[in-house]
Amino acid sequence: MHNIGIIGAGVAGLHLALYLQQRDIEATIVTDREPGDYRTAPLLNTVAHHNTTLEREKALGVNHWPDMDDHYHYHDHWLNFPEPINFPGHFKKPSRAVDYRIYLPALMDDFESRGGRIEYRRIEENDIPVLADRFDLVVVAVGKGPLGAMFEHDPAESPYQQPQRRLSCGLYTGVAHANPKNVTLSLTPGAGELIVIPTITFGGMGTALLFENVPGTELEATVTAKYENDPAAFRQVILDALERFHPSVYDRVDTASFDLCQPVDILQGGVVPTVRKSYVEFDNGKYAVAVGDVHVTVDPVNGQGANIASYAAFQMGREIVDAPVLDRRFIERVDMARNDRCLAAARWTNLVMPPPSEEFQMLLGAMSQNKSLCDEFTENFNWPERQWDNLGSPARIRRWIERSTMDRAAE
Amino acid sequence: MHNIGIIGAGVAGLHLALYLQQRDIEATIVTDREPGDYRTAPLLNTVAHHNTTLEREKALGVNHWPDMDDHYHYHDHWLNFPEPINFPGHFKKPSRAVDYRIYLPALMDDFESRGGRIEYRRIEENDIPVLADRFDLVVVAVGKGPLGAMFEHDPAESPYQQPQRRLSCGLYTGVAHANPKNVTLSLTPGAGELIVIPTITFGGMGTALLFENVPGTELEATVTAKYENDPAAFRQVILDALERFHPSVYDRVDTASFDLCQPVDILQGGVVPTVRKSYVEFDNGKYAVAVGDVHVTVDPVNGQGANIASYAAFQMGREIVDAPVLDRRFIERVDMARNDRCLAAARWTNLVMPPPSEEFQMLLGAMSQNKSLCDEFTENFNWPERQWDNLGSPARIRRWIERSTMDRAAE
Repeated sequence: MHNIGIIGAGVAGLHLALYLQQRDIEATIVTDREPGDYRTAPLLNTVAHHNTTLEREKALGVNHWPDMDDHYHYHDHWLNFPEPINFPGHFKKPSRAVDYRIYLPALMDDFESRGGRIEYRRIEENDIPVLADRFDLVVVAVGKGPLGAMFEHDPAESPYQQPQRRLSCGLYTGVAHANPKNVTLSLTPGAGELIVIPTITFGGMGTALLFENVPGTELEATVTAKYENDPAAFRQVILDALERFHPSVYDRVDTASFDLCQPVDILQGGVVPTVRKSYVEFDNGKYAVAVGDVHVTVDPVNGQGANIASYAAFQMGREIVDAPVLDRRFIERVDMARNDRCLAAARWTNLVMPPPSEEFQMLLGAMSQNKSLCDEFTENFNWPERQWDNLGSPARIRRWIERSTMDRAAE
Repeated sequence: MHNIGIIGAGVAGLHLALYLQQRDIEATIVTDREPGDYRTAPLLNTVAHHNTTLEREKALGVNHWPDMDDHYHYHDHWLNFPEPINFPGHFKKPSRAVDYRIYLPALMDDFESRGGRIEYRRIEENDIPVLADRFDLVVVAVGKGPLGAMFEHDPAESPYQQPQRRLSCGLYTGVAHANPKNVTLSLTPGAGELIVIPTITFGGMGTALLFENVPGTELEATVTAKYENDPAAFRQVILDALERFHPSVYDRVDTASFDLCQPVDILQGGVVPTVRKSYVEFDNGKYAVAVGDVHVTVDPVNGQGANIASYAAFQMGREIVDAPVLDRRFIERVDMARNDRCLAAARWTNLVMPPPSEEFQMLLGAMSQNKSLCDEFTENFNWPERQWDNLGSPARIRRWIERSTMDRAAE
């Protein structure tokens, strides 16, 4: 049977490796980061797993965080107009967030304890032909390094050349949560978004604050302030930002206990939303195929990156199991299986980067008045292709609002 | 709801129109050929409907030819080597062929008798903007005329610029059929193929002889001989071709009664296998979408054209029913739904145009020895994407043969 090399041990690489291991297909992970390295590493990201991803974790037997008290059940929207608008949208089934410095090594341990092999080393340029010879397929699940650089940019699906948000992500103490828990989406016109995510941290339940700042605004202070230089000044920058731009979140803060959970629990920067071509043919006729961020990089505002990476890993896993040969037709089948959801997540995320169109403003207004419309929008964080069916053109947004209005009138 | 214009009343246009009619979606057919015109027209083609297409006919309530005696149940393969090889491959469920001069007007009558509207007129260049204004979507289901010309050639899926076979298709009397009936595939290396199809004709059960002649061989006489000039000479050309190149079929001929069923029951020429881009955006922002031959033209050797046209019509119909807006996303969903099967049929057909590769020769040899392999190949005339999964590269063909050999050893 096939012998698969998986380069990278993020969620895509690990979910794929565990999927193949369950089906007795030989898979080797290569990564330069050992499980023990994660405990003291700076924050990697702020990631929520929607229920479709939790279902995949169950299928893999790696859902180590099943406590429903740690899950969140709805999005609480705040539109910070002069007269703020607040409305919830419920999922059908809850989502859950775990610090990836806990999550990834736990899944590495699962894979190794079940007999899986992880090789800990850095891949250099001259390793590539060796990998191509050794494996029937090289799955590239990490963007950095010479393998990630092989995949061409897809200009048709990559409208931006620069980050569209300046990001400040941190794990904090001292932010109250509702009961049951929610993710708060706080939108301030012209300034950007704040996503508040109840997150399982090394110290128990904490709070991720993900500032999605429009470049050029004074909120960039949340990106440039350095905690290690002056923790108190950093805290004050964040508190000021909350108070001025996201006041409903500020109201949840206990300023006395408010702080990063640990000094390293902060990540500041930005991503360029990018779609890359999904495969490279090696000189020996074998293929490398991209999965996860190296294939589709999205801004984190919609919480899609990890979820589409896990989805793509499962689709790829099924195709590997079914494939008689890991050739161009295999790649084509992988792309047919995963691309609609992955590209829909990218397009939807790219759509909400600029100031909202008239139609999108109408949609937000309608969601605030129509709970079932808002629930559908929220549930579709699990199903980005359905979201895109509703958002894919101004006419679709209008039609969706009309349909929801008619549905409500018919009730 | 949507108002759909369907230009062309071939199998794609009619199956789509009947599908939409069943679901109360307004669909208008525009064609320049009235039902009464077909009775005296020259032969249109020689088409077999595989069982997946018969199932669609049942779903539309248009299977007017249910008699199992008129169906065929297997392919009878003759490899005309110095020592001929003969072996059957069975379908899971039978196929059936009806002269399209009977079939198409019958379905036009079905559509009209159920309240459908067909407009009988020719489309000229200056009708296009009128159609674009009148309909929410223009479905182009006919290749000739100014609408068909709008769709760009897709070079990646169109390897040939010339017909790869010189075709002589006719409906004949005086050819015996096995009981139960079969389609005979007679392959003569260097000369081409002859497909013998039991076909329901105006005069009852007859026989389609579809000569697929390699260009430049003396079999081209079957393409250039003109029945109307000298019927006896024409008959002799066909008989000579059968006797010399397809002797097992010649053995089935009663020379005394052998003739075209009617003088017009002959079609001679060739097709350039071509895939076209599937849509055009009109100046007003609406779309035209291609279906059937205008989208994917295949050589008839594998009997795929009508079947993928019907399949594509159903996939398009479902997407029209589901679409909130007939925009670019709608087109994308149509293509996701239909393209794998349609392109697989084209690629498989294009694959068998040149002299067979070593792997394909091995496959034919293995099929002659391994009934279950040959049955799988035969059944996959219903499922071209599965055929392509097995034939898509030399390694896939080898792997398929190996797997079949192992399966048989395990029995």
